[in-house]
Order: sequence, then structure tokens, then C-alpha cells
Amino acid sequence: MKSTAISALHVETVKQSRIDQVDFDNLDFGKVFTDHMFVCEYKNGSWQTPTIKPYQSISLDPSASVFHYGQAVFEGMKAYKDAEGQILMFRPEDNLDRINKSAKRMAIPEFPKEYFFEGLEALLKLDTDWIKSGAGNSLYIRPFVIATEAGVRASAAQEYMFFIICSPAQSYYGGEVRVKIEEHFSRAASGGVGYAKAAGNYGGQFYPTQLAAKEGFQQIIWTDAKNHEYVEEAGTMNLFFRINDTLVTGPTSDTILDGITRKSLIELARHNNITIEERPVKVTELVEAAKNGSLKEMFGAGTAAVINPIKGFGFRDERFELEDVPNSYASLFKKQLTDIQYNLDADPFEWRYLVK
Amino acid sequence: MKSTAISALHVETVKQSRIDQVDFDNLDFGKVFTDHMFVCEYKNGSWQTPTIKPYQSISLDPSASVFHYGQAVFEGMKAYKDAEGQILMFRPEDNLDRINKSAKRMAIPEFPKEYFFEGLEALLKLDTDWIKSGAGNSLYIRPFVIATEAGVRASAAQEYMFFIICSPAQSYYGGEVRVKIEEHFSRAASGGVGYAKAAGNYGGQFYPTQLAAKEGFQQIIWTDAKNHEYVEEAGTMNLFFRINDTLVTGPTSDTILDGITRKSLIELARHNNITIEERPVKVTELVEAAKNGSLKEMFGAGTAAVINPIKGFGFRDERFELEDVPNSYASLFKKQLTDIQYNLDADPFEWRYLVK
Repeated sequence: MKSTAISALHVETVKQSRIDQVDFDNLDFGKVFTDHMFVCEYKNGSWQTPTIKPYQSISLDPSASVFHYGQAVFEGMKAYKDAEGQILMFRPEDNLDRINKSAKRMAIPEFPKEYFFEGLEALLKLDTDWIKSGAGNSLYIRPFVIATEAGVRASAAQEYMFFIICSPAQSYYGGEVRVKIEEHFSRAASGGVGYAKAAGNYGGQFYPTQLAAKEGFQQIIWTDAKNHEYVEEAGTMNLFFRINDTLVTGPTSDTILDGITRKSLIELARHNNITIEERPVKVTELVEAAKNGSLKEMFGAGTAAVINPIKGFGFRDERFELEDVPNSYASLFKKQLTDIQYNLDADPFEWRYLVK
Repeated sequence: MKSTAISALHVETVKQSRIDQVDFDNLDFGKVFTDHMFVCEYKNGSWQTPTIKPYQSISLDPSASVFHYGQAVFEGMKAYKDAEGQILMFRPEDNLDRINKSAKRMAIPEFPKEYFFEGLEALLKLDTDWIKSGAGNSLYIRPFVIATEAGVRASAAQEYMFFIICSPAQSYYGGEVRVKIEEHFSRAASGGVGYAKAAGNYGGQFYPTQLAAKEGFQQIIWTDAKNHEYVEEAGTMNLFFRINDTLVTGPTSDTILDGITRKSLIELARHNNITIEERPVKVTELVEAAKNGSLKEMFGAGTAAVINPIKGFGFRDERFELEDVPNSYASLFKKQLTDIQYNLDADPFEWRYLVK
């Protein structure tokens, strides 16, 4: 894979925008997409001329590899608009690094940095009217790569397509969240693809999550597949636990996603002089802490929800509810993080990325 | 999901067959497809009218779930033609059962039996000229289901498409096969989706297999993700070992595919009064058996290759080569199995399925 070439981005714009048909006050997450998309094909051993074109259907042979062998990876990012109308992103280089790390594990060629940023920025500027300023408003950005080669031989494809599609989003609130600590099903094997944002990691969670929903849980806390002894992640969020005044989160590994919100929270905690421990967290430790009252908060961290407080959890036949705390870490971090994202406060970490 | 309805299969045929463009003596596996395909959509909570139509591209929204969350399962089957021109299949009910088992784990609605057999048989009869008689010739049949609903929310889709596509195949011979016993990467977690023919299980194997190829191995023998202590499967084949005159294969589990060729071989072994043991097989046992000469044969069993002899294996820094044996079980089973499949011998097990 060559990553030295500078692309001659080809841009084809829509004749008529669809933006007037969209009710920005009542957005269903991930259902409406902007006028344009970014597309780049990989064939004959290299990425071809990247293109921005009107958002439209993809036409693929029924034998295309993605349909059969799941060679597909993605990212989730957001763009924000500040009061002056500037477009901002949050640590986008990390998303590119991660999609390429995911791609490598799935035998997909890495995507060149120049193509990515040139395409992404041009797309955001072209669809700038879809990015609304104001608290909670954002543009959810979904880069993804799929194997498109026709043929059902089970081996890595020789042809791929890299896309960026964008969907306007409002502040994410899915209601009170209670989670089930899962001991039967597993999300990822040690030595597997759990650390990658590989498509199949997500599809494999839907059935266990549906079963948990029947028991009244909105999400699952996955535990290690070996012995179900340690807490891993929640599938679309990394997990944080406040035990007394110490914040605890599991270490990243080959079964846990290296979340960008996760690592930002770790830095923010240090910045706030909050003791943060990255270490294996035993299920029994959580249960014990819930019982003795030292478990003050639990929350998930991820791009879509930013920080998602967890109200309670179930483990085997027991249910635990957390009391509201006055000086919530989740609220503190959410405010500090979104103030940086929306350009409402200083950015001592240099996380903001201005689209010029 | 309703499975009681009898479909009114809709058939649209090609105006001009592509069969004259195909060189049936030089087929690349899984690259050429027959004139028609079977398609059935799932929406509004039920499978719609199934259709046979000319083989053609699929058009999907870029946000379709299969591209992002890997909700996709498949099967591999074969049709054969005997000397009298009859079309035969091999235990096709088992493939339907398995795709529905896979579907359930991936939160995909099950497909009705009536639709499946009506569609499959009509398709085979319509494309009968693509099924060549003669040793080794077959039609490889690929049923698959993909999540097609547009939208990037990470939850089970509400819309799906079920397809059957068919590709003419010759006798499969991929050259001498040597395998690597893998101790770093893993294929499947206990509690995961390894027993399902879920798309992501395959894409996750390509990178480790590429690394093994650099060391001179054609395939990987996966071991359990917990301790890499027991042999599991080869990713597209179940594994059999002949130790002295006893045939040994690992038990099926939630990390190992319940192979139809595998279970047929177990029955065939019993029929031949060969001692067969279904039990966990330790890596150390294989290494020991290879060293002391009691490991007489290794082979893989799967639909595509039927039986694929394994010439040698690598474990850590050691390489083991197997001597040819005169009374090979692999050769015996392959002849008995293909004689049944091609209607060259009696079928005491009632495995053949005649398409009328």
C-alpha cells in the first residue's frame, strides 16, 4: 500500500440539496445522511483517485467478499460547529490510526493519511450546513472500509472501497442505562479481533443483548472469555468505575477497544487530580463495592454518547442500583470534554482539530 | 418469523445465457456464477415473496447494516449430476438447519424451509446445464443472508436479504497442505460465534493465515483461545487425525463448526468398523504421536474440498512431515463419500437428495 501519493480529489456535487427535508430537532440517530459521501477504491494494489459524490447506493456483486467473509472495519467520529461557525473535530488522527490498525488485523490495506484528511475536510466543508452549532448538536462521521472483490474463495480480497458518510446528530440520551454482567456469552477471544472495530464484533453482540433486554438491561458488560472473571467493555463503550474517589478502568488489550474518549478521560482525570487506575477490574470487586457502598459511579465512554452514566447492574440473580452522587465525575468529565469539543473552553491537550 | 406460508415463487429468466462464455475445464473456484440467483427480502417482520432472477449486482445504501456490523451468515453446499442427468444434493436439510442456527446467533430471522427448498430446486433446474456430470465436477451452492437496513445505529437490523448463488466447480486440489498449529492468534471465543458460519469468523482468519503462509503453511490449525492447549478446526475444515488405526476428531462446541462432512465421516468410519473417537485432542498428543510415528494421517473435512489430506504441520519451531500410508483412511472416505454424492454406489445412510 502506497501512502506517499497526493490525491487529485475528484468532487461531484448534488444538483439539489436534501437538507430542507430534514427536521434537525427530531433526528433519529444514524438514519439521515448528508448530501455527499467520500469514496475511494482499492484495486491493482493501490488506492485509486478519491472522490466526493452525491450520497447514493452502492452496487456490488452478490459474491462480494464483505457479504460472505466480513472483511469490514469502521470508525466513529464527530464534527462540531462553534459559535463562530468554525468546523471542529476531536483527535481525528487517532481515528485514522485506529481504522488502519483495525484494517491490518482484518487483512485490509491501510488507507493513506493524505487521502483521508483531504477527503474528510472537503466533505465537511461541502456539507457544512448539515453541522449545527449549539449544545449536543454534531455531525456523526462514519468512515468504513469494505472488501468488494467478487468471488467466494475464502481469502483476503484484492479490491476494497473506503467510504466516509455523515449523519447529523443531536445530544444522545437513551434513557437510564442498566447493564448486565455477562458470564455465558463472550464478545472477544484473546488473540482475536476484539480490539479492532471489525464489523463482526458488533453483529455478534446483538443476540446476547436482545436476551439481556428481556431481563430489563439496556446493555451488556462483557467479561473475559477465559473465565468471566474480569470486566472488559460494553461493546460500544469503554467502562469506568468510581470506587470511593478513585476512578478505575480496565487496561486496553487485544480484546478491548482502545477508545479515544476513554484515553481522553484518563488524561482529564489526571488534569483534575483525580486518582485514576488502569488495571484489571474483577467482577467480584465491583459486586463487593456495590454492596459496601464504595461504588459511587459507573459510566461508559464512547464517541456516540460521549459519557453514558450507568444507573445499575445485574450480576447473576442480584441487581444493584447506584445512588446519585452530588459531585459526579461523569458530569464533570462530560462538561469538560464537550466544552473542549465545542470550543467553549481552552484546549490544554491540543485535542481540537480545526477544519480550515 | 413465520415459516408456515407457502411461497408463490416469482421467476424471471435471462434472455441470453452466459454459459457459452465459460471454460468448464479451467474453472477458478468461486469466480464464475450461473445465470440465475434466488433472492428473498425480509421486511415488516416477515419474509416476502421469493424470487429467482438473472444474476445481478445488489444495490444497497452505504449505511446498510452488513457493511458496518457484520450481520451476515452463509452456507456452502454442492449439487452433483449423475450419469443419467439427475441432479443430486448431499444432506441439504442440514445446511438449512445450520444457516438458521447461525442466523439465530447473529440475531437474523430464520428462513422458512419451504421457501428454501422450493427456491433452491427451481434454481438448480433452471441452471441445470451449469451442473456437469463426471468425477469432481459439481455446482458449489452459496446460500447467504445479509442485513440490509439503512442506518448506523448498532443494533439488529429490521431488514434482510436471503440469497442463493451458484458457481460451477471442479475437483478441488490446492496442492500439498501443511498447517501451522497457532498459539498466538485465536479464531473463536468460548461463548462467541465460532460455531456459526458468521461472516466475521472468516475475515478474522485472513491476517494470521497470511503470516503463516510466510512461514510456508497453507492453513492454520486453530487451538482453544483459553490456553491453546486443544486443537479446534482449520477455519474452513474440521480436522481428523489417525493415530495408529484409530480415527480421532475434536468434539463440536460453541467454538467449532458442526461440519456436515465431519459428521458424515464419523458415520462412515463406524460403517467401516474403524474406531472413531470424538474427544478433545491435545496439541501435545499430536506432537508426541508425530514423534513416535503413531500419527499416520491428518486430514481436513469440509464441503469445498470434501477431504483434504494434510502432509505436515508446524508447532513452535518444529516441523513434522507425515509419511504416505498405503491404506489411507482419507482416500477410503473420499471414495465412499463421493460415490454416494455422485450416485455411483448405494446410499445406506440416506444422505442423497434427488431434485425432481
